[in-house]
Amino acid sequence: MTTVGFIGLGQMGNHMARNLLKNSFKVIAYDVDPKRQAELKSDGAEIVKYPADVAAATKNLITMLPNSSCVNAVFTDSKGILETISPGTLCIDSSTIEQSASIDISKLCEEKQASYIDAPVSGGVTGAQNATLTFMVGGAKNDYERAKSFLEKMGKNVVYCGGVGNGQAVKICNNMLLGIQMIGVSEAMNLGVKMGLDPKLLASIINTSSGRCWSSDTYNPVPNVIEGVPSCNDYAGGFGSQLMAKDLGLAQTASTQCKAPTPLGSLAHQMYQILASHPDFKDKDFGVVYKFLSKTQ
Amino acid sequence: MTTVGFIGLGQMGNHMARNLLKNSFKVIAYDVDPKRQAELKSDGAEIVKYPADVAAATKNLITMLPNSSCVNAVFTDSKGILETISPGTLCIDSSTIEQSASIDISKLCEEKQASYIDAPVSGGVTGAQNATLTFMVGGAKNDYERAKSFLEKMGKNVVYCGGVGNGQAVKICNNMLLGIQMIGVSEAMNLGVKMGLDPKLLASIINTSSGRCWSSDTYNPVPNVIEGVPSCNDYAGGFGSQLMAKDLGLAQTASTQCKAPTPLGSLAHQMYQILASHPDFKDKDFGVVYKFLSKTQ
Amino acid sequence: MTTVGFIGLGQMGNHMARNLLKNSFKVIAYDVDPKRQAELKSDGAEIVKYPADVAAATKNLITMLPNSSCVNAVFTDSKGILETISPGTLCIDSSTIEQSASIDISKLCEEKQASYIDAPVSGGVTGAQNATLTFMVGGAKNDYERAKSFLEKMGKNVVYCGGVGNGQAVKICNNMLLGIQMIGVSEAMNLGVKMGLDPKLLASIINTSSGRCWSSDTYNPVPNVIEGVPSCNDYAGGFGSQLMAKDLGLAQTASTQCKAPTPLGSLAHQMYQILASHPDFKDKDFGVVYKFLSKTQ
Amino acid sequence: MTTVGFIGLGQMGNHMARNLLKNSFKVIAYDVDPKRQAELKSDGAEIVKYPADVAAATKNLITMLPNSSCVNAVFTDSKGILETISPGTLCIDSSTIEQSASIDISKLCEEKQASYIDAPVSGGVTGAQNATLTFMVGGAKNDYERAKSFLEKMGKNVVYCGGVGNGQAVKICNNMLLGIQMIGVSEAMNLGVKMGLDPKLLASIINTSSGRCWSSDTYNPVPNVIEGVPSCNDYAGGFGSQLMAKDLGLAQTASTQCKAPTPLGSLAHQMYQILASHPDFKDKDFGVVYKFLSKTQ
Repeated sequence: MTTVGFIGLGQMGNHMARNLLKNSFKVIAYDVDPKRQAELKSDGAEIVKYPADVAAATKNLITMLPNSSCVNAVFTDSKGILETISPGTLCIDSSTIEQSASIDISKLCEEKQASYIDAPVSGGVTGAQNATLTFMVGGAKNDYERAKSFLEKMGKNVVYCGGVGNGQAVKICNNMLLGIQMIGVSEAMNLGVKMGLDPKLLASIINTSSGRCWSSDTYNPVPNVIEGVPSCNDYAGGFGSQLMAKDLGLAQTASTQCKAPTPLGSLAHQMYQILASHPDFKDKDFGVVYKFLSKTQ
Repeated sequence: MTTVGFIGLGQMGNHMARNLLKNSFKVIAYDVDPKRQAELKSDGAEIVKYPADVAAATKNLITMLPNSSCVNAVFTDSKGILETISPGTLCIDSSTIEQSASIDISKLCEEKQASYIDAPVSGGVTGAQNATLTFMVGGAKNDYERAKSFLEKMGKNVVYCGGVGNGQAVKICNNMLLGIQMIGVSEAMNLGVKMGLDPKLLASIINTSSGRCWSSDTYNPVPNVIEGVPSCNDYAGGFGSQLMAKDLGLAQTASTQCKAPTPLGSLAHQMYQILASHPDFKDKDFGVVYKFLSKTQ
Repeated sequence: MTTVGFIGLGQMGNHMARNLLKNSFKVIAYDVDPKRQAELKSDGAEIVKYPADVAAATKNLITMLPNSSCVNAVFTDSKGILETISPGTLCIDSSTIEQSASIDISKLCEEKQASYIDAPVSGGVTGAQNATLTFMVGGAKNDYERAKSFLEKMGKNVVYCGGVGNGQAVKICNNMLLGIQMIGVSEAMNLGVKMGLDPKLLASIINTSSGRCWSSDTYNPVPNVIEGVPSCNDYAGGFGSQLMAKDLGLAQTASTQCKAPTPLGSLAHQMYQILASHPDFKDKDFGVVYKFLSKTQ
Repeated sequence: MTTVGFIGLGQMGNHMARNLLKNSFKVIAYDVDPKRQAELKSDGAEIVKYPADVAAATKNLITMLPNSSCVNAVFTDSKGILETISPGTLCIDSSTIEQSASIDISKLCEEKQASYIDAPVSGGVTGAQNATLTFMVGGAKNDYERAKSFLEKMGKNVVYCGGVGNGQAVKICNNMLLGIQMIGVSEAMNLGVKMGLDPKLLASIINTSSGRCWSSDTYNPVPNVIEGVPSCNDYAGGFGSQLMAKDLGLAQTASTQCKAPTPLGSLAHQMYQILASHPDFKDKDFGVVYKFLSKTQ
């Protein structure tokens, strides 16, 4: 029975840790929230007091945290992972954070003769629950191979992206493009409807033309163009506007650091910042930008 | 032997008219440019002096012109189509123009007991040459059926989009989305490369993820990611930046008239206006926006 | 007693015509709305049935209409101005419309040996009421001199801008810049407040620094930074978001026609289109963009 | 004779330190570049080996560094300021950096019973040379009073902005607005010229209307509209595009951290990123955006 440490039992992490338990791993877990701790304990995990206790107990560590401040704290605080980590430990960080933050942590791990890979995910809460996540992995090839045995229990795709930080880079670039496309599809569909087109007809032509994309042919933001997607259910569930705003913010940080101009990416970020601060839109699927643009009194 | 009138023998129109000749139609043609006239004459067309002469000779008219001023002139000038048009004539306008301009012309035709459909195309010069264009048709269903026998000789898809003006609407909406996506892909690929990713790897992951789209998986603007596309040949050929600027401008006119907000569409328009006024970029394929964004000293 | 024709007695026009009456002009007026007609009649104007009747009665014509369709109709309809206009008539068009529309009308007037100047205004309803408008005049210099005697009764500045259409050009350019600045000030003030600054302190430093502008030092959109402006009164009165959206739309039409890139102008247009379609913002002063950006739950 | 420590003798810092020498201060200085050290030594400064040596020698410290990495290094490295700083020392940081970085450093100073104020400047190299800089100061009021005696020798305005970090906030907000206005003026002037207006006439009207701002009435980016500004000298000197890109990047970092939407600010940032990566524009005054927008072949 293999032991895995799991730090961060939030909306995503609790499902991921549970999928490891289902696959007969022994899970030693930590979260700041006692309620989250209790839930996973009742499902069979061992709960410890500090991140340092997790690192003391196993050489396989997974972290799933909301931002780089949390990741830094979990690794570098006085009761953090780096206090007790053993040589040969593999740290798998599934948090979505700045590329530079991933690279910084990996260096601190290296000083302890431990390995670090960044492995951010796509697939959302549903993917976490059903173990259908995609992991985008950056790090040494052998660490990627070693991580696979854990990641495959929580997801269906584990994609190798190159050295440390490349998992973050791939996720940030894909999601920036996704945000741009979702707004673009919403603008084009709304304009078409206002010009007198039937939205299903417009979508069907776009989907076989040069405008086709995932946001149009698989996840269309116009209600009732495609069945079973959030737009048909008043944008409940799915990938929230706040999360899209977060990922687009990471893209902007990268754009500034790399001096890579991203005019549409930055405007997409601003639009999702507006949605993310609005009570009607912030907790809705990111396709709700269609509703924001099309709504008139 | 069916007779067709063809007005506008430019970059697109001369190939389209030639494809009608190849399919044993009798073509009566007009263009402002004597050189264009002479070329088509040597291929078998009959050349007349004025648009009115074309309309006097046949009830099947095709127009392929660069903008709505030209279309208006060809129809309403003193030697224009409307001077001599017979009841029962079908006017097929393949120009890409404002939806409102199409609707206005259709009403003038109706007053003469003639029909009008708008049938703008996609597929570019290559599509015109190889008779592989897509026609997006707006007009009465029976006019669409009647037009098909001509359009099928010049293209491979003839898509019915609803009433008059809907062909323009579909083309404008699709191309606005296309312009947004091409810039978005260029931004994401450039950012990824600057963050240390291999462009082929990044494209391959995007193309199986939520960021996938035609501009990424079929027409990638990064040189050598996909073989045989303009980006591999310094952006020669393809769909020019100036044409994209034109189509995005039509989308902005529609956005203003319909009061449909298009933030990304308007920014895409401005970026292609910048490219279209720059000697290094104006005559290049619209994927050249990647070069514009990635170029550093 | 000099006679003036006045066509268009709306929100602005009724005050302007009244100021002419107050200055002892004889006013012959027309409006589509009988209520507006009745109001001005009770103030001393003579009301006629058609624009053609106004033009038949006087060689001094003022038009104040909401858009170029209305202007075109008033001039070219069968009962329009051009039916009865006499040689030597001066048409003063104070409508804010496309530059190209002004130029087109001026040519039709010229064919009748009449003159045309465009003279759009700034100053809003308050300026119309108090005769403190600014007129931006495009046309022949002697027509400008002739127009002055009328315009000075309705405003306090009559600025000569050059040939026909230049009045529109100046107004469109100034108002595009104004829209950009108002959003810019709103963004900067909101960001500053979120960073912990007192808005009055921030404004006072900006107003003596390189960021100073009219939207900051005279019309600040943050409530209670400057007394007596619309932001202190929940953005009531002032210059409405819908009017700003209209002017920014005219700037976009000009940008497309002239191939002059206006990235910030087009984004400003889109933002005011969003505000202009929102019930909470559409009828408010354009400074309400601060409220839109700063509002969080 | 008062002693002052000065760390960072770059384009700005060398002039600032020299102005202290001119005012009979004893200056103990450090820079990474031996050439810069030698220059200031020949002007009378004492040069030391490490930042720690500066802090060991005086309780009055000024830092003028290009970014927060440098500031962090100068304070926290093993030979950094914090190694040797005495209680009662006042650190005046004139670097333009993230507000959060200023606040973090101030806390480290506080742990050593030392004070920290952020005092970023505006006025550029010319202002540094002529001692006409403006300092925007954030920190305790008594620290501000103490700092004044030094700052007044290097600038003509020392503005108190509130607590630590507020100097950065004011500078970032003002300069974001400035960047927006400069692009806005450039767009409006270029559009006006393309619409047929004389640029001097247009500027003169804007400057007495609601579009007036510093970028139009004092620093107009159109050549020969105002005498003696960089636009008249092919944009040589002045405030460089790269520096504007840096400040707009800091504004974007703040916008993301504070969740304050800045649509125009982010687009302005992207535009200056494009200019800052272009060999023709990167070293020019930021008014060169006019040239970028107006240039056609």
